[in-house]
Amino acid sequence: MITPNEPYVDLNTDTGESFGRWKLGDDDLLLSNVTSANVACGMHAGDPVVMDRVCTSCAEKGVSIGAHPSYPDLQGFGRREMRMTPSEIESFIVYQVGALRAFAHSLGQPLIHVKPHGSLYNMAASDEAIAMAVARGVARCAEPEGNLLLVGLAGSLSLQAAKKLGIPYAAEAFCDRAYRSDGSLVNRLVPGAVLHDVSEIANRAVSMATENAVLCDDGKVLSLRADTLCIHSDTPGAPDIARAVRVALERAGVRVIPLIQTKGL
Amino acid sequence: MITPNEPYVDLNTDTGESFGRWKLGDDDLLLSNVTSANVACGMHAGDPVVMDRVCTSCAEKGVSIGAHPSYPDLQGFGRREMRMTPSEIESFIVYQVGALRAFAHSLGQPLIHVKPHGSLYNMAASDEAIAMAVARGVARCAEPEGNLLLVGLAGSLSLQAAKKLGIPYAAEAFCDRAYRSDGSLVNRLVPGAVLHDVSEIANRAVSMATENAVLCDDGKVLSLRADTLCIHSDTPGAPDIARAVRVALERAGVRVIPLIQTKGL
Amino acid sequence: MITPNEPYVDLNTDTGESFGRWKLGDDDLLLSNVTSANVACGMHAGDPVVMDRVCTSCAEKGVSIGAHPSYPDLQGFGRREMRMTPSEIESFIVYQVGALRAFAHSLGQPLIHVKPHGSLYNMAASDEAIAMAVARGVARCAEPEGNLLLVGLAGSLSLQAAKKLGIPYAAEAFCDRAYRSDGSLVNRLVPGAVLHDVSEIANRAVSMATENAVLCDDGKVLSLRADTLCIHSDTPGAPDIARAVRVALERAGVRVIPLIQTKGL
Amino acid sequence: MITPNEPYVDLNTDTGESFGRWKLGDDDLLLSNVTSANVACGMHAGDPVVMDRVCTSCAEKGVSIGAHPSYPDLQGFGRREMRMTPSEIESFIVYQVGALRAFAHSLGQPLIHVKPHGSLYNMAASDEAIAMAVARGVARCAEPEGNLLLVGLAGSLSLQAAKKLGIPYAAEAFCDRAYRSDGSLVNRLVPGAVLHDVSEIANRAVSMATENAVLCDDGKVLSLRADTLCIHSDTPGAPDIARAVRVALERAGVRVIPLIQTKGL
Repeated sequence: MITPNEPYVDLNTDTGESFGRWKLGDDDLLLSNVTSANVACGMHAGDPVVMDRVCTSCAEKGVSIGAHPSYPDLQGFGRREMRMTPSEIESFIVYQVGALRAFAHSLGQPLIHVKPHGSLYNMAASDEAIAMAVARGVARCAEPEGNLLLVGLAGSLSLQAAKKLGIPYAAEAFCDRAYRSDGSLVNRLVPGAVLHDVSEIANRAVSMATENAVLCDDGKVLSLRADTLCIHSDTPGAPDIARAVRVALERAGVRVIPLIQTKGL
Repeated sequence: MITPNEPYVDLNTDTGESFGRWKLGDDDLLLSNVTSANVACGMHAGDPVVMDRVCTSCAEKGVSIGAHPSYPDLQGFGRREMRMTPSEIESFIVYQVGALRAFAHSLGQPLIHVKPHGSLYNMAASDEAIAMAVARGVARCAEPEGNLLLVGLAGSLSLQAAKKLGIPYAAEAFCDRAYRSDGSLVNRLVPGAVLHDVSEIANRAVSMATENAVLCDDGKVLSLRADTLCIHSDTPGAPDIARAVRVALERAGVRVIPLIQTKGL
Repeated sequence: MITPNEPYVDLNTDTGESFGRWKLGDDDLLLSNVTSANVACGMHAGDPVVMDRVCTSCAEKGVSIGAHPSYPDLQGFGRREMRMTPSEIESFIVYQVGALRAFAHSLGQPLIHVKPHGSLYNMAASDEAIAMAVARGVARCAEPEGNLLLVGLAGSLSLQAAKKLGIPYAAEAFCDRAYRSDGSLVNRLVPGAVLHDVSEIANRAVSMATENAVLCDDGKVLSLRADTLCIHSDTPGAPDIARAVRVALERAGVRVIPLIQTKGL
Repeated sequence: MITPNEPYVDLNTDTGESFGRWKLGDDDLLLSNVTSANVACGMHAGDPVVMDRVCTSCAEKGVSIGAHPSYPDLQGFGRREMRMTPSEIESFIVYQVGALRAFAHSLGQPLIHVKPHGSLYNMAASDEAIAMAVARGVARCAEPEGNLLLVGLAGSLSLQAAKKLGIPYAAEAFCDRAYRSDGSLVNRLVPGAVLHDVSEIANRAVSMATENAVLCDDGKVLSLRADTLCIHSDTPGAPDIARAVRVALERAGVRVIPLIQTKGL
């Protein structure tokens, strides 16, 4: 139950981004400090063995499971722009969400949300055709109990597309990424795009959750209301960041609760 | 409703085995003559676009949809032996079944069965650990309404594994493949392993369905009871074979009905 | 020996675009009518088995062998834009050229040229950083006997990059594709972008080779000097087109000779 | 120049086994202590960017470059048995050796040797058809200056195949792996198959190089003459192991010299 005026937020992380012999991030440590997990679905990272293991960890730790679909680009980790047609994107979303859901369901867990990965996430934020394709893919994966939540960049076209299709959505903000005052993220290739100072990241998370605001790279203050804050799992020290953010949020009186509760679903 | 003593059988085909720019088989023509479709799930063939299109065709033609999971081997079309661990196989089954099911469900269709592809099918038929891994994977993908049907070689360990786990199964026979008298298929690399004469194939189908028997390569008669007969989609002239088999079966008084009905589910 | 004023041109085809179980085009038939082959290198199509077989055919038929490297995108057949960095592109070119060259050399054949495929070809034509990356990759693959020829769109940045790096290049034109009057190709997704009428294609080839000109989609005449004309192998009827183009060229007095001779190398 | 009776050995490592976003092993540290590098070629690990970078490191450190081709199995890291035909294996070897050689040559370095990876290495050691296929692939990649060296398990069919084809070969031993007294390696899945104690590994290396002997898991002493000793790069602490082995060898009066010198080529 969310009390009026009491600030709250979900904490999510991209996880399950190992592949075969290669390990990336410490999934178990990270999952101890977040409320929602975006699990890679095999196209940019993750394979069936990894997905099975990470969903098991989520179930054990009570973390909400979501799908983290991507462009098919293992070598580029889904971070390159690729020009797929909207219809292709829609089919690729359905495929990946379905694959991940099977693991969740086989472990007795519901699938809660879908958050596109990397370049697909970014392109959906600013390209309406792609945003609509993603939203259609998510809408097609509705559970008998209702639609999946689409997680997208706060203030972006991704969320407008979900709204247009009548599916629930959650606005996301990044406490470890630099923002431009138009609400977009500074490109990863630009120095300073990814923050590394733990206390700076934690402070940013608190101001996002309590003031609905973030300081941008040009010194302006961007107003944004986030339902969920992202902790990147492949940043060095990610588990420490997650822990620090969580502690800082709770000290500031922010309730850290799963996505589905932040949306009152 | 199946009348006692009236012979009946399901007719299935491996389908959706195109990939990207490459087309294989004429899915639409084939689907017009079968009652069940085993749809490739992206590991030996099939991609999300193909899966979406083929599931749509199945829905339009009233063909039952099943998953056709494989070892991950696109270049070898899943026909090479690969030594995965049972636990890996189980996870790869869950992944592929989940991916395909999402397309079926998004089109309002149920997923009915799972039939492993190629080398995985053959290895499961004769290796108990692999048979159990496949069956566990299928069992984990149970729908709220009940378990999926596992399709395996008639008389093989695949079906015994399903029995052991208490999941429903269907025995399959191949009217276009040569048999050895131990019930196994003659290896594809052996000349004569794949039959091409349409009327010979059709006759074989009829004797399988009405006499529960097939003539083997050593001249012996193998007794086998098949719930479903397979039409390979990548054989040249596959749609003609499917048509001829169906016509021959119906002329011989065999009812051609979906898998789920042959099993009385 | 090329006589002054006698028109001549190389005829090239993209080939080896099968993959595993999937066949695309009739490599042998096509190779009987061209002088140069651009052999897929495994990233958009082609696998080691296909490459080996096609290089053998080229050797038997006396067709010059070239590499046809692509973005890594099997499912999209290399036809999607992908945003790789110039440095990545350079490494991917070296990899693919090296792989193909090993087959040519092991059969006693030289590697003559490199022609990028699909989206990489198109992006290199109009993006200087990509054009330079491709050219650097090709320059790094110089043989002891000299540089490889870089094949690029006539009049494009691809050729300027080769010029800047001091490597030899050949200008290509497409007798089966519609042109815009700026010298670029009409996008494949636009109706009419790919010509199918055999005699129209053959006539176009003749006017390209004898008049250095092509009629564009807006009715203007584009002047272009092509060292080589492309026959797409995946167009239905490609071998007939190749035959018709070759016959028409020879009837019009155009000598059809390998790339290396057109460049006087 | 090798003095008679002075013991010597090459020290090799499997390297370049990162892929895209995923790092594996510390290539630079390892390369500082070995004389030969087996560079992954993209089929079990390695991508063109990684290969380019690792070959550059080898060139800077004066480490001999060899190819480390594998079955195509990225998710299984080439460690699973796969049943490819001999002809397929041959083509896959040519492809991978060619790809890697292009990087070496573009950096002014020769390609010296070929060492199959993982399951292909093991299967070639005990299956004559596979051993011959690998050797034929290597023979087809002869340089103008002579054949490449084939590295295989000491005493195995791999080396006999090279001998039969008349190509040079080098016998390899593993100072960090348990041996059975028939000369084969204990399977990685068996506990104790991979040694982790640095001084035990170093001592083993010394007895291999000075006594041509190794103590087996059943207590017997296996006699084997190794031209080269392998340091696995993906073992935790691999650089320390390499350093310890090198120091121990040199203290014991063993010269550590590149493969090509151990063979007097």
